[in-house]
Amino acid sequence: MLVLGIDPGTAITGFGLIETDGWRSVAVKYGCIRTEAKSPMPERLGIIYQSLAEIFRSYRPDMFAIEKLFFAGNANSAMQVGEARGVAILAAYHAGLEVHEYTPLQVKQAVAGYGKADKNQVQQMIKALLHLQEIPRPDDAADALAVALCHAHTITPGSRHQRRKIYV
Amino acid sequence: MLVLGIDPGTAITGFGLIETDGWRSVAVKYGCIRTEAKSPMPERLGIIYQSLAEIFRSYRPDMFAIEKLFFAGNANSAMQVGEARGVAILAAYHAGLEVHEYTPLQVKQAVAGYGKADKNQVQQMIKALLHLQEIPRPDDAADALAVALCHAHTITPGSRHQRRKIYV
Repeated sequence: MLVLGIDPGTAITGFGLIETDGWRSVAVKYGCIRTEAKSPMPERLGIIYQSLAEIFRSYRPDMFAIEKLFFAGNANSAMQVGEARGVAILAAYHAGLEVHEYTPLQVKQAVAGYGKADKNQVQQMIKALLHLQEIPRPDDAADALAVALCHAHTITPGSRHQRRKIYV
Repeated sequence: MLVLGIDPGTAITGFGLIETDGWRSVAVKYGCIRTEAKSPMPERLGIIYQSLAEIFRSYRPDMFAIEKLFFAGNANSAMQVGEARGVAILAAYHAGLEVHEYTPLQVKQAVAGYGKADKNQVQQMIKALLHLQEIPRPDDAADALAVALCHAHTITPGSRHQRRKIYV
């Protein structure tokens, strides 16, 4: 099963594609879509949509997951992230995929085993769980892989962290 | 020249289409796109995109204008408005239109003649400027017509409010 995770933003949208049976996962492709700050916003949103549409066409993921963000701070930054999220969700919807959303707490819980794990712990777990030589870069790609792993673990009853939650 | 104005939101997106030469304007079509709160967000965003794409196809507007919002309050509401804005801007981009943004201050200035005009004054001016029998309803449609009028006046040197600004 192919799961695509996304960490959306207008400047950088991270994506991470994993092949998983819910127990064992490997990274198929990850990276990020960058847009230039000096480009007009419609063009930047167009690039995000188009790049995701190409990933959907090329890899035909079975599932799509995105981080559900909560903003405590600047509402105008939140609106801009919303614009990127909106087009990312629309691209998934146009590709016929269900959209699954996870909070940062759920992602940390599923990947690192507990919700207060720090960034480095989460990244080390992504590296281990996906059998990578190095921590995936940039952070946005790592975050996207974490969301994909979270979805893989969540939909698999009795999978690694589900079990761990029960037995620890 | 046909100008489409938009007031985006996930629950209600107002739209207002005016035919204008910059001096005299008439309302061609206005209304709103509603989505149900109980529907999943991807579907709601899909409806907004699709409805706007149909308006672009049916009416072929020459210009597109949208309100540039500033949020002082809730960042999570701002993110949700951002999602609707993102897909509205994307629909315009896909239709090959430039996106023009105006602040609420610019809209009031252009339509009512001064930036501190209240909602009722702005709506009375929309009714007068577009030769309507009544104030357009709902408010979201009136707001969308106001943005369209703002764009029409802004791009026309020496038009109604441009002149007024000079002589008053």
